[in-house]
Amino acid sequence: MMRAFTTLELTPEQAARLKEALGGDFLVKATDCSNEAEARERFDTCEVALGNPAAAWVAENSSLRWLQLESVGFGEYLALNWSKLGGHLRITNLAGFFAEPVAESILAGVLALLRGVDRLVLDRQRHHWDGETLRTRLKTLAGADVVLFGFGAINKRVAELLASFGCRLTTITRESGALESALPNADLVIAVVPDTPGTRNVFDRRRLATLKSGAIIANFGRGSLIDEDALADELQSGRLGGAVIDVTREEPLPPDHRFWRTPNLILTQHTGGGSHDEVDRKLTRFIENLSRYRRGEKLVGLIDLSRGY
Amino acid sequence: MMRAFTTLELTPEQAARLKEALGGDFLVKATDCSNEAEARERFDTCEVALGNPAAAWVAENSSLRWLQLESVGFGEYLALNWSKLGGHLRITNLAGFFAEPVAESILAGVLALLRGVDRLVLDRQRHHWDGETLRTRLKTLAGADVVLFGFGAINKRVAELLASFGCRLTTITRESGALESALPNADLVIAVVPDTPGTRNVFDRRRLATLKSGAIIANFGRGSLIDEDALADELQSGRLGGAVIDVTREEPLPPDHRFWRTPNLILTQHTGGGSHDEVDRKLTRFIENLSRYRRGEKLVGLIDLSRGY
Repeated sequence: MMRAFTTLELTPEQAARLKEALGGDFLVKATDCSNEAEARERFDTCEVALGNPAAAWVAENSSLRWLQLESVGFGEYLALNWSKLGGHLRITNLAGFFAEPVAESILAGVLALLRGVDRLVLDRQRHHWDGETLRTRLKTLAGADVVLFGFGAINKRVAELLASFGCRLTTITRESGALESALPNADLVIAVVPDTPGTRNVFDRRRLATLKSGAIIANFGRGSLIDEDALADELQSGRLGGAVIDVTREEPLPPDHRFWRTPNLILTQHTGGGSHDEVDRKLTRFIENLSRYRRGEKLVGLIDLSRGY
Repeated sequence: MMRAFTTLELTPEQAARLKEALGGDFLVKATDCSNEAEARERFDTCEVALGNPAAAWVAENSSLRWLQLESVGFGEYLALNWSKLGGHLRITNLAGFFAEPVAESILAGVLALLRGVDRLVLDRQRHHWDGETLRTRLKTLAGADVVLFGFGAINKRVAELLASFGCRLTTITRESGALESALPNADLVIAVVPDTPGTRNVFDRRRLATLKSGAIIANFGRGSLIDEDALADELQSGRLGGAVIDVTREEPLPPDHRFWRTPNLILTQHTGGGSHDEVDRKLTRFIENLSRYRRGEKLVGLIDLSRGY
């Protein structure tokens, strides 16, 4: 009998669905364990796992053959000894899983800045009618020069959603050096790349200064891409038009962080990938991969940890 | 020499541009007149006008041959005696002019509700990190059943922008009786129809109650379409998912109106058509029509006032 472990918080219906898919196999729920030590001890007996258990646990679990992450990112597992672990353990991530919700959150944030939704929400809170003034300051997305930094599933979906807006799209992959030359012409930069040595601090103070006045930047990759203090300066001075920030270097954002009060910044608090049916869809992905696992087929979302993605 | 009148507030550059287009003809700016009486007296001598002068002024100006409105709506002129005025006066409106900004504001508001931007803006104001809870409640637009009520330039543009979202669109024209049967299946209703006897109160309490739970309604037509108190009730109870309201029965919204504090309502304060280059674009439209007027060609945006649109 195979033992499966999950860190996910499940409703009774979701737990029943997962147990049914596992059939005769045994399910260990981290949320059922009375403490961390018990959870870890039981995890050590499991062959498959769903969720993001601590990297140290993964490193020392010699029973584990397959770990289905509930995320796309897997930076916390990169430092493990993969020349040793790689012999018995495969990891799959949720590549592509978040494309639709994240792409829609990107568009929601950008359009909110252009059409003044953020200001209108605050106006309403203080019962302030400001329409006549505000309407003369609004912009449209139509015809904008858009730089898509990263061209994985999310920015591919963004490109599809932008198709009807008549934007000029420039696609920059992380391997490309073209970012630097594309920035000065961009009305909008949408960054969706993982944290790698090559992307860290890619939007430093110098590069942010090359963006044109009024430009908008959206970061739905990793907080490490951007010099947050430099971005706050550019927004505070009014030189940049706005920012939509889903990911920050520290989450939750520390209470004294400037992003709480930086003007023209929409902070989406890492909700970009969220949806009311997210856990159900994660279970679907796991259950489909479980069938493949049992039949010895290639798993969907397999990560090559020697390459780092 | 022809005399032209405008109610628009122009910058010196814009006034210079308009004077150049008028050539030898004389421009009267309402904003240059010292009082209403003087403005009206000078208006009475003008053959063409740009802007929305009071209906009573229009009724009694026997010199006026062409009025270029700076709006799409023209309800304030409907009650004039058109069997008499129609003999010498033509009115053009800005049909199609606002399609792009309004369509983008509609999408901005709807996506903001679905992706939680309104709540995140308020969270940020009170320095509150709520991402983990909020992300499990978000929805996506993909695959939604959308009813487009009205299919003029604006909703046609909305349909184009929605193309990549994979929504199922149902188009209802104001002449159609199909609205009633379409409402119970709609995830999203986007109303962009003018105020006519047939559209007034079309979203009354009874029809709003036929919308399914969680549905979103966007009104970018006229405030008279909706029973505002009934909508506030549906949102207050949490039965409807949200509303994006650009137009209200009274504007500015009265201080004690429920829409200031109704949950899940985004009030865009009639900014939908706004853009930073709006006046410049209005001048362009007028100047192009002026050439047609002088050459005796058909004017763009001519209204048939006997039909009411």
